[in-house]
Amino acid sequence: MKDLSSLGIRFTDGELYILDQQLLPHTEDLILVKDVDHMVEIIQMLKVRGAPAIGISAGLALAKFSTGIDDREKVRSMALKLRESRPTAVNLMMVIDRMLVHLEKENFHQYFEEEAVNAFEEDVELCDKMAEYGAELVQDGDGILTHCNTGRLVTAGVGTALGVIFKAHEQGKKIHVYVDETRPLLQGGRLTAWELEQGGIPYSIITDNMAAHMMKTGKIQKIFIGSDRVAVNGDFANKIGTYSLSVLAKYHDIPFYPVANL
Amino acid sequence: MKDLSSLGIRFTDGELYILDQQLLPHTEDLILVKDVDHMVEIIQMLKVRGAPAIGISAGLALAKFSTGIDDREKVRSMALKLRESRPTAVNLMMVIDRMLVHLEKENFHQYFEEEAVNAFEEDVELCDKMAEYGAELVQDGDGILTHCNTGRLVTAGVGTALGVIFKAHEQGKKIHVYVDETRPLLQGGRLTAWELEQGGIPYSIITDNMAAHMMKTGKIQKIFIGSDRVAVNGDFANKIGTYSLSVLAKYHDIPFYPVANL
Repeated sequence: MKDLSSLGIRFTDGELYILDQQLLPHTEDLILVKDVDHMVEIIQMLKVRGAPAIGISAGLALAKFSTGIDDREKVRSMALKLRESRPTAVNLMMVIDRMLVHLEKENFHQYFEEEAVNAFEEDVELCDKMAEYGAELVQDGDGILTHCNTGRLVTAGVGTALGVIFKAHEQGKKIHVYVDETRPLLQGGRLTAWELEQGGIPYSIITDNMAAHMMKTGKIQKIFIGSDRVAVNGDFANKIGTYSLSVLAKYHDIPFYPVANL
Repeated sequence: MKDLSSLGIRFTDGELYILDQQLLPHTEDLILVKDVDHMVEIIQMLKVRGAPAIGISAGLALAKFSTGIDDREKVRSMALKLRESRPTAVNLMMVIDRMLVHLEKENFHQYFEEEAVNAFEEDVELCDKMAEYGAELVQDGDGILTHCNTGRLVTAGVGTALGVIFKAHEQGKKIHVYVDETRPLLQGGRLTAWELEQGGIPYSIITDNMAAHMMKTGKIQKIFIGSDRVAVNGDFANKIGTYSLSVLAKYHDIPFYPVANL
């Protein structure tokens, strides 16, 4: 299987590594994934988080650890363990289901590998496209509010909402990012701030309860936020705090953009 | 000087003690106040917090540590040190100014003591009255949201917004209190929850960014909140996160009551 590398996921010389997001930003620890149970534990302990990254990691784990196993029931049971490890990550179900479609085929191992690699590479492209579309909405001088972490750590590519921000910065637009610390797990204060620091993009971490004040005082011109799932009518589900921001954005007449590919 | 005792402030046998609010809820440590500089440090380190409690502590400290000092300039300098120790606590300036009015009088020490004791005792009465008025607004079965800490710890009496909640509970009304944890210093999660626990009042700690969701899903019927200062037109200033809650309350059509005596 070919080598693949994102900020949070590495597939190198046939070994799968996950950057432990629970230890960031103070410690950068790459975990060598030992087997499917280990991958499930890594997902459940939130060491890898973000729906795209969870799906991609699980797909790579299934392809790797099913290699050489011809007992299809054993492989199916590995797949289902992974599929059930995190109920809110739709990408996880999608990637595993894409692989299981091939299970009855003679050379299913090869299909598994192809699907796992595709899931990774498609995500890179999707992120790039979303970043380009989104960056068109950003203007020079914008203050941008974001919530939780939606960047390179949670995708195979440049990220979703944070990808838009990185792309706008890359285009030379002067922006300042206001990062909700995002209680209770502080994904904003720990992870988004870390990514912005690495990218050299100006930012301020704020407590979640400050967002309304920043809107009121004219600091925020746009809100970009991730989304776990978008419905056909535009409704979407996302991290706690998102609904609060959407009501506050409406009251202050500030454009609010959920960024996601599904 | 007579003995006085509230949850956070004790004046016993001529000694002034402050319950260290930074160590709550895990450790209950009464600090013996050594001198005016020590009292200033206790205020600045937020070991005593809440505008009424700051004013009352400072008044007691000035009365105690000016005892026997006849050099009025020395006493004035002690008073000003205390007065400047926390710029946002209006009660602090009010108590100290009430005492300084008497500085040129012959027996100013006695006036100082009387004013310090009055500040304490008046606050107990004010809290009781606010609690009674406020409790009339609470109905059996209400879910009540509160933010920060506004209880016995921050007054000489039953508290402001939290006093209303305690009074309603005392009247036998079945209520459930939703406590914003109140980032960044967690006065809700640490202090309000601790007071509610002691009072046997049912409560849930929520992250600040959950409040809107609780409103949307019908959990919250009333919001009671403290207030650092109310203007004649009804505008008021209070802890970060208050403006956010007021916008969310308006959107969800939930009554929102700031509770304060100045």
